[in-house]
Amino acid sequence: MKIKPHTLTATEAGQFIASGQLKSVQLVQSCLDQITKTEGAIHAWAYLDPEAALSQAATCDALRQKGLATGPLHGIPVALKDIIDTRDMPTERGTPIFKGRQSEDDARIVEYLREAGAVIMGKTVTTELAFVHANETRNPHNPERSPGGSSSGSAAAVAAEHVPLAIGTQTNGSVIRPASFCGTFGFKPTRGTLPRTGVLQTSQSLDQIGSFARSLEDTALLADAIAGYDQRDPESYSHARPAMAKGSKQDAPLDPDFAWFNLPFYDRLSEATSEGFEGVMEIMGDRVTRMDPANQLSNLVAVQARIHEYEIALHLAEVFDGHWDQISETLKPIITRARKISAAEYQDALAVKASAEAFFDDFFIEFDAIIAPAAAGEAPEFGNGTGDPIFCTLWTLAGLPCVTLPLLVGETGLPIGVQLIGPAKKDDRLLRTARWLQNHIAAAAA
Amino acid sequence: MKIKPHTLTATEAGQFIASGQLKSVQLVQSCLDQITKTEGAIHAWAYLDPEAALSQAATCDALRQKGLATGPLHGIPVALKDIIDTRDMPTERGTPIFKGRQSEDDARIVEYLREAGAVIMGKTVTTELAFVHANETRNPHNPERSPGGSSSGSAAAVAAEHVPLAIGTQTNGSVIRPASFCGTFGFKPTRGTLPRTGVLQTSQSLDQIGSFARSLEDTALLADAIAGYDQRDPESYSHARPAMAKGSKQDAPLDPDFAWFNLPFYDRLSEATSEGFEGVMEIMGDRVTRMDPANQLSNLVAVQARIHEYEIALHLAEVFDGHWDQISETLKPIITRARKISAAEYQDALAVKASAEAFFDDFFIEFDAIIAPAAAGEAPEFGNGTGDPIFCTLWTLAGLPCVTLPLLVGETGLPIGVQLIGPAKKDDRLLRTARWLQNHIAAAAA
Repeated sequence: MKIKPHTLTATEAGQFIASGQLKSVQLVQSCLDQITKTEGAIHAWAYLDPEAALSQAATCDALRQKGLATGPLHGIPVALKDIIDTRDMPTERGTPIFKGRQSEDDARIVEYLREAGAVIMGKTVTTELAFVHANETRNPHNPERSPGGSSSGSAAAVAAEHVPLAIGTQTNGSVIRPASFCGTFGFKPTRGTLPRTGVLQTSQSLDQIGSFARSLEDTALLADAIAGYDQRDPESYSHARPAMAKGSKQDAPLDPDFAWFNLPFYDRLSEATSEGFEGVMEIMGDRVTRMDPANQLSNLVAVQARIHEYEIALHLAEVFDGHWDQISETLKPIITRARKISAAEYQDALAVKASAEAFFDDFFIEFDAIIAPAAAGEAPEFGNGTGDPIFCTLWTLAGLPCVTLPLLVGETGLPIGVQLIGPAKKDDRLLRTARWLQNHIAAAAA
Repeated sequence: MKIKPHTLTATEAGQFIASGQLKSVQLVQSCLDQITKTEGAIHAWAYLDPEAALSQAATCDALRQKGLATGPLHGIPVALKDIIDTRDMPTERGTPIFKGRQSEDDARIVEYLREAGAVIMGKTVTTELAFVHANETRNPHNPERSPGGSSSGSAAAVAAEHVPLAIGTQTNGSVIRPASFCGTFGFKPTRGTLPRTGVLQTSQSLDQIGSFARSLEDTALLADAIAGYDQRDPESYSHARPAMAKGSKQDAPLDPDFAWFNLPFYDRLSEATSEGFEGVMEIMGDRVTRMDPANQLSNLVAVQARIHEYEIALHLAEVFDGHWDQISETLKPIITRARKISAAEYQDALAVKASAEAFFDDFFIEFDAIIAPAAAGEAPEFGNGTGDPIFCTLWTLAGLPCVTLPLLVGETGLPIGVQLIGPAKKDDRLLRTARWLQNHIAAAAA
């Protein structure tokens, strides 16, 4: 074939593999070549073993040749954020403290990936312990910029066409924000949809897994493949997951109803972002209702911070106690502060979180989705943090499904995401709504 | 509705639930009523909590009412052999040694059932430690007869319309044989398809999970819902499972090719069974090839016994050592004998097993399925064992998928199963072939 396999989406590559026009080995080799060409400038990978990836791909090709069943990701390379355990690769969690760390088991989502036929390509760079301190990854669109965090390498690897799919995690804005900065699609399903056993726990109440891809459909394809009930994950729910890939391919039966919240912190948006959203909302016309929410809503930002900080200090107490000298100067003051949060303050924050969830349960009776910025604007300069996560905070806190579409362009031509947030456990409906918006904007542009 | 919900197959009930014509609570209540009426004569249940079952059903109905996603077994009651762990019910393993035993975790297949929306109805009677010594279950067709074993209660519960679906296990013939005796469909997928974490291990090399139902399609529906890769199960394979329910509903593209082996132990078949098979094969005409296999094939019976006995003595050594006085007089001599099997004899047996697997891999290049008796004939008298498993031994040893269809009738009007065995990991093809046979026999009878 003349097209370069590494440029294909997972859905496209999967169709070519199913029809015998493409072998997984060719796809993986093409991705490896692309990595060789561009990784020097990007640093997306924390661990990559080309031989192991090609060997998995060869196994996939052999299974297909034998006429055995193939899964939804058969032969497709997937990158994992370096906090997701694999029994055959190290998981170093973005800190020298865990250098060379090898888990005994695969994470539950890795079991699902293997069953789905995915080629586990390697581990992508995360910020230190999936929190604030950036590591070496650069934005593929401009190496002087940050890719965002904490799932820095996952977003960059997908944007740079190193892999069609990658997995990240979000405790505040760590999937949606880097997806926005890198111009990929990003999808964080409802909390509890994707199982977390074998993924570094930084905040039991808030940590959520998400997917990066170069099409909306692909983010859902990946999410479907790794979704499932996990009794060892206290947030995992023990009933059926929505059919997300199906939702991403469905037309909405009616034009959806969107809400836009005028939130006080939207004064942090760049001019191009504000203008971009005005343009989008003009196209959407009366499908979108602008509203001034109660102040409590923006107060939730502090609630998220309290829970996040209290829990990371608690869950990783041994790490901080035993290796304080290896903790970054960015993280140290946060942990020092976190240790002063009282149990009562933490419990209060959890109570507010629960009331926020109840608020959104009611809210989505009238609306299909909230439309919101994914980030303040273009990716910030490299070396100056990973960007402000505040545009994701409320939705992550409430455990709502969020998706970002790379629809806008900023001052210097870098991508900016449009975020949609939907009702809990109706991820299929959110994706259907996102598809509607994508098609509607494309039609208006044509 | 006028029809009694408990008489429906899972597929039928699922359609009525999906369309809103039936509530899970009604279905479960109907099943509970049927249990109340007939359990006194059958003794299929080791543990049953009607309130807990109705509460799960109410949860299913509420999820549907909220418009949330529903799984493939939404609201359908499923019974579990009493060696399958559940975190909310005891698992007593058919022996007083484990009376009141409560596991901390769900078995992996129970996690899958919950996610699929199944109502976990309770635990069904197993023979002692899923081996030879029968417990109290009677055959629903005739209480003077055995239901077979070791999955005695699972087969009886499905036959008696206590539940549409039940799970059992087979190390020799413990799914296919009781299904034959009770007149249900029984399906044991390829070894490694269904994960065993949380299921009593009696023989790591041979233990396999299977399903009971009142239609072919239902056995596959259940198998699909509980299939998956499990890194903690050493026999579990880490790639995709075939689409079994889909296979069970597909027409074969060509008339399949069957093989019948003239095996020396077929002289144990009852007259009605032999005649029944002659009748079936007459209808099948030249679709079936009769062959006299090499003697090695029937020697595999001894190989299965060696592995089974060596491994159960090993895996359950603590149980036998600590509770010998509570072991049945049926089992004691087997364990005493098993302890004399040397490691070298065991290793030799494993090597023969591997060569048998290789033989069948080649064999199924030319044939779609082997047709074979599921048992010697009608169910034996109660109190006289659970029947001869030899008609299942070879296929279980080789890990091949097996299905039994209740197509024949014995001397006293009791059911006799027709067994089909297919190629490993092509369970979908076996089910398609079974569907062909079922339709072909029905057409000939019409």
